[in-house]
Amino acid sequence: MRANKLPTEEIERDPAAFADRVTADGRFGFAAEPGRYRLVVSRACPWAHRVVMTRRLMGLEEAVSLALTDPVQEIIGGDPHWVFTERTGSPGGRDPVLGIHALREAYLARNPGYDGGVSVPGLVDIPSGHLVSNDFDQLSVDLATEWGHLAREGAPELYPAALREEIDAVSDEVYQDLNNGVYRSGFAPDQRRYDRAVAAVFNRLDALEERLTDRRYLVGEHITLADLRLWATLVRFDAVYHGHFKCNRRKLIEYPALWAYARDLYQTPGFGDTTEFEHIRAHYYRVHTAFNPTGVIAIGPDPRGWLSEHGRETLGGRPFGEGTPPGPVPTGERVPPLEEQDRPAGDDWSVPKS
Amino acid sequence: MRANKLPTEEIERDPAAFADRVTADGRFGFAAEPGRYRLVVSRACPWAHRVVMTRRLMGLEEAVSLALTDPVQEIIGGDPHWVFTERTGSPGGRDPVLGIHALREAYLARNPGYDGGVSVPGLVDIPSGHLVSNDFDQLSVDLATEWGHLAREGAPELYPAALREEIDAVSDEVYQDLNNGVYRSGFAPDQRRYDRAVAAVFNRLDALEERLTDRRYLVGEHITLADLRLWATLVRFDAVYHGHFKCNRRKLIEYPALWAYARDLYQTPGFGDTTEFEHIRAHYYRVHTAFNPTGVIAIGPDPRGWLSEHGRETLGGRPFGEGTPPGPVPTGERVPPLEEQDRPAGDDWSVPKS
Repeated sequence: MRANKLPTEEIERDPAAFADRVTADGRFGFAAEPGRYRLVVSRACPWAHRVVMTRRLMGLEEAVSLALTDPVQEIIGGDPHWVFTERTGSPGGRDPVLGIHALREAYLARNPGYDGGVSVPGLVDIPSGHLVSNDFDQLSVDLATEWGHLAREGAPELYPAALREEIDAVSDEVYQDLNNGVYRSGFAPDQRRYDRAVAAVFNRLDALEERLTDRRYLVGEHITLADLRLWATLVRFDAVYHGHFKCNRRKLIEYPALWAYARDLYQTPGFGDTTEFEHIRAHYYRVHTAFNPTGVIAIGPDPRGWLSEHGRETLGGRPFGEGTPPGPVPTGERVPPLEEQDRPAGDDWSVPKS
Repeated sequence: MRANKLPTEEIERDPAAFADRVTADGRFGFAAEPGRYRLVVSRACPWAHRVVMTRRLMGLEEAVSLALTDPVQEIIGGDPHWVFTERTGSPGGRDPVLGIHALREAYLARNPGYDGGVSVPGLVDIPSGHLVSNDFDQLSVDLATEWGHLAREGAPELYPAALREEIDAVSDEVYQDLNNGVYRSGFAPDQRRYDRAVAAVFNRLDALEERLTDRRYLVGEHITLADLRLWATLVRFDAVYHGHFKCNRRKLIEYPALWAYARDLYQTPGFGDTTEFEHIRAHYYRVHTAFNPTGVIAIGPDPRGWLSEHGRETLGGRPFGEGTPPGPVPTGERVPPLEEQDRPAGDDWSVPKS
């Protein structure tokens, strides 16, 4: 979803360009080893966010280091590219570990002839500088299931075997209608395709509102990957999808159960503490010049609403199941307090130039 | 505000091109006479809407006939122009009374050398076909005060002498920060000017929320022109300004007093019965290609919310003061029921071509 141009057809997210799996036993060639990989993400991106949440809930922050790109992509060869910049903490505009300016360099290191799209998240093998995978879905699953020996004590079971069928079924619907549906609405090349996409978004939200009215989490009695997938879209909904992607039948805050569910998770370690609204707004409004040609960043709702009481504890459930909450966010990965994520945009978020 | 291009500076509404006043005694050359004038409006336009409401509240429907343009302007010579079309009830694409296709023809009849903008509302002298005035503010004031001998029995005092100072003062603030402020936000050529405009919009809404918490109407104990001015913007807020003009700090429905005030008026004859949401959405999203290049019309909130209970009667006041409500809307001017104003846009609202 890297377009600064409108597609002529309904958009579909590209399949991952590289999808090597990193597993406990290295059976696909890459083994989960501490310090060997670097996870490149943007705080803006929902596809990356679910992997960031998984890493933190599993306590893999020391095992897999994090590299944050600028939320506003740089135009390189006519296409927007994820890059490292001074203003988001990379001295000299290069990631201090990988030594690269643009994530695409890790794609090209892996395959010098690569000319496809570049997306976050990207897992990079530090010794070779090669991209290992940009498959956000498999990355979440593998961090949740294959990195157990490196995870913290008390890490939750995010993808328990007994619930996988239900997690996959719910996730498929959420993926089609919401995670991807909001993009299909925003990037719709014509009215007919917009009408269809936006109807699916709100039909799905209506169904989820019902599902979450009397259960605290999407599947089972604790947080699973299904919640991470849904939440990555919900947390961006009123800030960007509602207006910028024209998903404006209702705001999230108009769904009592979904809004309470979303705040419950926001206030749970691993969710709100990995969210940065200023990056989210800057990315969407600055980059999608195909349908926001001025690049003006809309003010959006006051993010402090996310801290209001949700009352979901009465529904029972235990966020981490048999496990425990993750500890404090490592220094260097902390997001600013909410009031600092709400400042007027000013001209702080110009498009980076190398 | 006829731009399909972005201005380079903060926008200001042009002064009226023609502002001849039609009065009871004809002291400025035009006398209020039944059947002599035709009011050209678009249901989409807030500036026209206040004149339409004034005409109806005063019961001047028979005295001044109404001509409805298509909500989507036609591009003529590179500029969007208000035109009459078959789909909005003008056989052969010409107004049956004036015989013109584009409102600009009445401007040109008046002044063949005119090359400025064309806006609604426009009051046209039927015998000569000349535009008399496009001064929306003066038109409202004159219909409310100079046409009394042609008005219905029980017509309210919309601009009573004793309250004029306060009406003008409130109206000035509403005009600057809201009526015009939403346009300044939407048409902002850069971030800095957007930030300033949108801050004024919400500061003004915050102040009005307080003002309207314990009083039913803006000024005095009944509806005045001040209410018409404010309401013309409020009724469009969640449907178009919130998303399309990026006024998205809050929706109108998030202001308890303002939202109840707005519904109270919607449900009062003269307000909701002159509002057509489908025209509003079609106009804004289709015409402003400068910042909505695809022309996709956002679905917007379900307009049926406007019919919910408001509970404002307990604040006292009498909508029409010493007067009475207007009678039924004349056949031929009735807007469709709300559920029909909410249908998917489909491709029904293509840009007209003559």
